[in-house]
Amino acid sequence: DGAYVVVLRESEARNFGVQSGDTVELRWRRRKLNARAYFTSSKVHPGEVGLYRDIWEKFNIRTGDILQLRVLSRPESIKAIISKLLGHTLSYAEMRSIIRDIVDRRLTRSEISYFVASSFARHYSDAELYYLTKAMAETGQRLSLPGVVVDKHSVGGLSGNRTSMVMVPIIAASGLIMPKTSSRAVTSPAGTADTMEVLAPVEHPLSSIKKFIRQNKCCLVWGGSVDLAPADDRIIRASQPLGVEPLNKMIVSIMSKKVAAGIKYLVIDLPVGPKMKIPNMKIAWEVERKFLAISKRFGIKTKVLISEAKEPVGRGIGPALEARDVLRVLQGHELRPVDLEKKSVRLAGELLELAGKARRGSGQAMAQKILDSGEAWKRMKKLIALQGGDAEIRADEVVLGAIKKRFFAKRNGIVKRIDDTAIDEIARMLGAPNEKLAGIHLHKRLGNAVRKDDPIFTLYAQSRDRMKLAEKALLKTNIFTVYSTRHG
Amino acid sequence: DGAYVVVLRESEARNFGVQSGDTVELRWRRRKLNARAYFTSSKVHPGEVGLYRDIWEKFNIRTGDILQLRVLSRPESIKAIISKLLGHTLSYAEMRSIIRDIVDRRLTRSEISYFVASSFARHYSDAELYYLTKAMAETGQRLSLPGVVVDKHSVGGLSGNRTSMVMVPIIAASGLIMPKTSSRAVTSPAGTADTMEVLAPVEHPLSSIKKFIRQNKCCLVWGGSVDLAPADDRIIRASQPLGVEPLNKMIVSIMSKKVAAGIKYLVIDLPVGPKMKIPNMKIAWEVERKFLAISKRFGIKTKVLISEAKEPVGRGIGPALEARDVLRVLQGHELRPVDLEKKSVRLAGELLELAGKARRGSGQAMAQKILDSGEAWKRMKKLIALQGGDAEIRADEVVLGAIKKRFFAKRNGIVKRIDDTAIDEIARMLGAPNEKLAGIHLHKRLGNAVRKDDPIFTLYAQSRDRMKLAEKALLKTNIFTVYSTRHG
Repeated sequence: DGAYVVVLRESEARNFGVQSGDTVELRWRRRKLNARAYFTSSKVHPGEVGLYRDIWEKFNIRTGDILQLRVLSRPESIKAIISKLLGHTLSYAEMRSIIRDIVDRRLTRSEISYFVASSFARHYSDAELYYLTKAMAETGQRLSLPGVVVDKHSVGGLSGNRTSMVMVPIIAASGLIMPKTSSRAVTSPAGTADTMEVLAPVEHPLSSIKKFIRQNKCCLVWGGSVDLAPADDRIIRASQPLGVEPLNKMIVSIMSKKVAAGIKYLVIDLPVGPKMKIPNMKIAWEVERKFLAISKRFGIKTKVLISEAKEPVGRGIGPALEARDVLRVLQGHELRPVDLEKKSVRLAGELLELAGKARRGSGQAMAQKILDSGEAWKRMKKLIALQGGDAEIRADEVVLGAIKKRFFAKRNGIVKRIDDTAIDEIARMLGAPNEKLAGIHLHKRLGNAVRKDDPIFTLYAQSRDRMKLAEKALLKTNIFTVYSTRHG
Repeated sequence: DGAYVVVLRESEARNFGVQSGDTVELRWRRRKLNARAYFTSSKVHPGEVGLYRDIWEKFNIRTGDILQLRVLSRPESIKAIISKLLGHTLSYAEMRSIIRDIVDRRLTRSEISYFVASSFARHYSDAELYYLTKAMAETGQRLSLPGVVVDKHSVGGLSGNRTSMVMVPIIAASGLIMPKTSSRAVTSPAGTADTMEVLAPVEHPLSSIKKFIRQNKCCLVWGGSVDLAPADDRIIRASQPLGVEPLNKMIVSIMSKKVAAGIKYLVIDLPVGPKMKIPNMKIAWEVERKFLAISKRFGIKTKVLISEAKEPVGRGIGPALEARDVLRVLQGHELRPVDLEKKSVRLAGELLELAGKARRGSGQAMAQKILDSGEAWKRMKKLIALQGGDAEIRADEVVLGAIKKRFFAKRNGIVKRIDDTAIDEIARMLGAPNEKLAGIHLHKRLGNAVRKDDPIFTLYAQSRDRMKLAEKALLKTNIFTVYSTRHG
């Protein structure tokens, strides 16, 4: 920001209560000057202040001159963080100072930890969540796309669930703009970015992304390509040691990216279940309320769809297997996973109604029609081609792991339980998401009747060793629990 | 602790939710092994696990083997920190896990920040403060000295106030054991360790300290020499960015060191004033209550003496000037600072009564007698000699800064205000505490009548440049405010 900078020895500066980023007043002989203080641990000797040439040349300061140094102000952000820790309500200016200093790297990880701690220990009002969202959206890249810009967001935790890849071409075909950015898997066997990458590259410069949208009304790219709400990454890093994400932080993080992307209509998919991020309905309703409150302040029309998560959505787990599911739905394949199609069509229908493309009650039918007519697949082909993939790919041409092992039912019965956590674990053992061709295909769903020797699931791996690992794990873990029909 | 250790790539480990220090289970071929996971950012490639020779030799693991890794347990300490942040009450085992992991460097600065944050944002019960104190005392060095061990602690913030150096020889002369450890100045112009260092070295190995006490019943050493409650240092470092110390943290930090030192009787000097750590009486009473509650649980008899802090104690500010004050009191010099003598005698008297050396109401007289008889000075001489200083030093032989400048009253009047903050600032400008001979001597006290041209204070420095700085600062800052007697 053009301010003068002085460099202090960290240990010494801390003793004098100077923080990195403080504005200090330097005085020597009859002159004075304000500057920002930054730290070094080695380059400056005790009792010395480091100056850059711009200062010592301009002000004729000589080595050996005695400089006097006084703290004029501590970063507003530190004061604001303490204030929040002590339970006070923060203003927009305070929230913005925190986020600004996080983005400008003026706060250390330890200082950011104090901020994250406040969201565990203190209540945030709706107004504060709005301020925080606004500050996070404003301190990064902003998209301003022509047309009616819409989006959908799934709160993570549910395997499969590649609804975005089905919805994007349906929505774009309706004339709305859907600039979908997605993440890679963190602890799951596949994120939407990992799955889309099986079909086409997902890392593109912003100029290309804008071109995709101009030519095709949509994209499916990795979120890291677009620098939306960059404070989020640093906050996430500071909160990782705890292994728990405060829900307020999650809501703000999602909404700030939507605001920065200029979204006007938004559908949020909120799977609820004991192993999901949202464990029960009470919390789901509170999260819904907050999403709606923040959306309203930004003029975003949002609908939250709460659903019970009992089993994965789709048949495949792992990037290539999930990509095949998506293609099967878009290409109307006879083996397409009906649950993925239904959920995608339902979410797309809501979004069409929300954005006024379809009358209330007719969105789903419209989405289904776009899908069935082949319009959605046409749109997806263009998307794949624009992003640099092979647009002629057929679902059954998706390459899967060369090593394959099928598992069969040991008796007649009914599938009573599918263990989502075990599925994730086995899929990761098989190599997903780094080994894109690895994963699990589920032949049966909850409630399905099975007969002895029916195939229940198939494992795919790229190496024998990984397959062996998974097989061994399966000796102790049941992905499927089949109740014998004699007892059921 | 003898556990096997595996080294993981930090970025990868974080993705899998593995924390530094987690216990993980390694499985390969038909074997398994538990180990602690630690991080590196460079030495291990993605997808690899680093093993030390002790593991791969013993278990015959070959490069290329596939290892499977599962988190068995997250450090209890992290769970406990989250629990406290969420407002729960912690048990002794939980507190101890946190402090243990801080001492063993299993928690990063950022993780410790979350713990410090909890003491800003959450209530700590007396039991929790006790647990914390106990855990901090138990995870470091412990002294166990023969005899009745006593101590005195001044809660910082008041200039001068070198009562410890007067009290220690008085108390030791009475037959009690007083193993005084002190800190160096952090933001003030002198700490007791800095001042004592003018007379003798203060950094000694524990074995020497024990010898001093065996031979002379006392010592005056730097606290860093004795590793009492080592968690404290790391906690302080994590809380520095905020520039504010939670009072609970301060109380626990003081008490844990007293417990580790085996103190049985304790007097706490609590100066209260707008610029002190304890700003008002209400807070002082709450702090007193907590000191007493914790002391009681450890069987320590403690007395807290609350006093109003309006001006520095003693005449000198800066290590050498403060050392001269102490010697003048101990040697019965005609120019000795009476306030320092009175306060020291009062505190010593309380301690003598508390420890049963004097009857109630007669402690002060006893302390005064030990001082007046020269017994205290004899004890101090031996202390100086044992710690390696010149025991024959006379108060007026203390060397002061060679450059000296006296300031005079401009009119007749009464001293109405002495600005403690300005005194500290000017003393630091003059070079204290690093330049031990620099500082300020006050010729007048609050309420003293002054006549035009009376000396009011004298500055001492080791360099002309620093003297000039201070003089210039004094053009704008008043250390003394003298009200003209004509108006008052």
